[in-house]
Amino acid sequence: MNSVENRLSEIDAYMLKLGAQARDASSAIARATTAQKNRALLATAEAIADSREALYAANKQDLEAGRAKGLEPALMDRLELTDARIDTMIEGLQQVAALDDPVGAVSDLKYRPSGIQVGRMRVPLGVIGIIYESRPNVTCEAASLCLKSGNATILRGGSEALHSNQAIARCIAAGLSAAALHEHVIQVLDRTDRDAVGRLITMPDYVDVIVPRGGKGLIERISRDAKVPVIKHLDGNCHIYVDARADLDKALTVTVNAKTQRYGTCCTLESLLVAEPVAADFLPTLGVQLRKHEVEIRACEQSCGLIEGAVPATAADWEAEYLAPIISIKIVPDLDAAIAHINRYSSQHTDSILTEDFGRAQRFLREVDSSSVMVNASTRFADGFEYGLGAEIGISTDKLHARGPVGLEGLTSQKFVVLGDGHIRQ
Amino acid sequence: MNSVENRLSEIDAYMLKLGAQARDASSAIARATTAQKNRALLATAEAIADSREALYAANKQDLEAGRAKGLEPALMDRLELTDARIDTMIEGLQQVAALDDPVGAVSDLKYRPSGIQVGRMRVPLGVIGIIYESRPNVTCEAASLCLKSGNATILRGGSEALHSNQAIARCIAAGLSAAALHEHVIQVLDRTDRDAVGRLITMPDYVDVIVPRGGKGLIERISRDAKVPVIKHLDGNCHIYVDARADLDKALTVTVNAKTQRYGTCCTLESLLVAEPVAADFLPTLGVQLRKHEVEIRACEQSCGLIEGAVPATAADWEAEYLAPIISIKIVPDLDAAIAHINRYSSQHTDSILTEDFGRAQRFLREVDSSSVMVNASTRFADGFEYGLGAEIGISTDKLHARGPVGLEGLTSQKFVVLGDGHIRQ
Repeated sequence: MNSVENRLSEIDAYMLKLGAQARDASSAIARATTAQKNRALLATAEAIADSREALYAANKQDLEAGRAKGLEPALMDRLELTDARIDTMIEGLQQVAALDDPVGAVSDLKYRPSGIQVGRMRVPLGVIGIIYESRPNVTCEAASLCLKSGNATILRGGSEALHSNQAIARCIAAGLSAAALHEHVIQVLDRTDRDAVGRLITMPDYVDVIVPRGGKGLIERISRDAKVPVIKHLDGNCHIYVDARADLDKALTVTVNAKTQRYGTCCTLESLLVAEPVAADFLPTLGVQLRKHEVEIRACEQSCGLIEGAVPATAADWEAEYLAPIISIKIVPDLDAAIAHINRYSSQHTDSILTEDFGRAQRFLREVDSSSVMVNASTRFADGFEYGLGAEIGISTDKLHARGPVGLEGLTSQKFVVLGDGHIRQ
Repeated sequence: MNSVENRLSEIDAYMLKLGAQARDASSAIARATTAQKNRALLATAEAIADSREALYAANKQDLEAGRAKGLEPALMDRLELTDARIDTMIEGLQQVAALDDPVGAVSDLKYRPSGIQVGRMRVPLGVIGIIYESRPNVTCEAASLCLKSGNATILRGGSEALHSNQAIARCIAAGLSAAALHEHVIQVLDRTDRDAVGRLITMPDYVDVIVPRGGKGLIERISRDAKVPVIKHLDGNCHIYVDARADLDKALTVTVNAKTQRYGTCCTLESLLVAEPVAADFLPTLGVQLRKHEVEIRACEQSCGLIEGAVPATAADWEAEYLAPIISIKIVPDLDAAIAHINRYSSQHTDSILTEDFGRAQRFLREVDSSSVMVNASTRFADGFEYGLGAEIGISTDKLHARGPVGLEGLTSQKFVVLGDGHIRQ
């Protein structure tokens, strides 16, 4: 065996061991009581509160290595553990502890003509693999949601956050131990080879689902290579359609909020469609507002004439997720054209219609094929907390299993339960 | 280009055309009214009733070709369209028309503290690919469920049923036309090359999910090669555990029913576990009953001593799905051992405990990780009709999306709907 083969077979052995441990732990955590899981979450929060110095020291190692490697400022920012970020981790653990336990909930239990009762029981998925990039606080957030939903987890963070992640992993281990839970319920990889990721996503015997969190490149690569289902979110090219029967005052407020409240989120407005009959009334005022926020406007030919300072949009703009103070604007003749444009160019994340017309609102809700469809609301509401899920592990733009923000329920599935008293099939 | 390349590029073009047509049709059928979909189903039923002669003629061609090719009797039997089977197709279409339409149903619509209302709307998956083997009536069953759930469908039946499937496809086309629905809502492949299947399962742009129906070999091949999610069911190694606190009279009736009511179904009992304290009371009587049904008994060493005519089981028996008058029997010390055995050897399809003990029943329901878990009921109940789903497209042993019998709801997912009145994110 040459040295490459040696290394690969060593990674293989390491990952298979982790996988087998996770599978083993998954049946233990699936049976754990709600009280036990909450105890582990709260004990982890305490361990983090007691380990601030150790966390800063570990994080400092990562930051220094990052500076030496010349990581770009945005990455360095995400990598840093501040006092506020540690507080957020602690609060997050307490919030997840306070959420209802989804596991074991039985719904729709009904008698059937045969005399049996049939219902559905919510159960964990099993083992969840989380692959993420530089933010070390994801270690804590993702682990807490997987734990509360009764799953075992294997976490693989970015190489630049290795020391920070290991320090957080020690707090989680203390939490599991305080609740007398299986030590392998949450495992954080202590190596960052890319080949380890390749193995993690191709062990269907040991991993039931992969949740990648990070840039589009990471997620595309994982979706392409995985032999395990992936709960994923690619991009958020979100639309607002201002209908001919929109209340233009509301439309102005909602559009400006959806574009400017935060530029870098996946539910930020990227592309605005305006019905022709109201374009001349709406767009000049909107243009003034957006310019105040220094938003660059890339517009179709017709709307360029209505908006001071707008530049002509190219075909690529209709597909773009800017994540920046840029917006594309297009005038469309009517609702049909708006729905057709959205179903063609949207990334099926979040799209909103602004209208006072009941029938058109109903049609938009039904016909736009996106994970969140809205009427008279800012796309910025597409978020697990705003939806009342308590927390989210991500937003899915897939169609199977979970669509939209994925909370605790999205990390479970339902099995059938049948209750009888000696019933037989005729 | 040589002739193989020529053929492959021709298949490619054919499949991509079908895919693009299906994608196009899927947005039309997603918007269709319930009345329109029911009209198509009932018109298809009428077309089938009016086409008995044409169906028999087409089926005769397939049967003659099958005889000439020397197909085995079981396959020839499944291939045949009898009067009763045509009646069943017609009734099936009428039953699906009578089911509630799942599409557009909104649930859990609630006000959030921000003032928006958030709920979930049930929506079709999009385009479903169905791959099946010799039974031509699957064409009709699968098409009707996909249609009612608002999906476009591409069906690829077995080569031995080509003429029968085409004849049924003509009836479906007549039904779609009578309801003025898009002609490509249901497309039945008129070619049977294996490469066409390879293409169908690797077109994520055009196909949202694959449902394979057939033998384990087919399903394993498709799961391995697919680049699209697969709703699948591998095998049904179903268990009954007779607990020490079982009512042995009920246990006898239920066990005999689960094993002998039908041998060839995926929810037939294959492996029986008996708690040691009741084994000597239960097994001799059970042996007598099973022998009356000419069931071969393969038993562990200890139970061989209690059952006349039993032969020793080998390790392979604990994993076997017999689909035949054979049963494996093992004595276990207690509930823990039974759950451990089932979670190790079961195919996670359907497993049942027979006990009068409340706590043990609860533990079994919670801890057995199968798509259907039962108390005091025959495993033979694991079926879409018995569960009240109305009909089923298959039984899923997967964990994500749908587990257990998959009815209309399993062919849909849920998107979020948000209703506001000019609400913005703070």
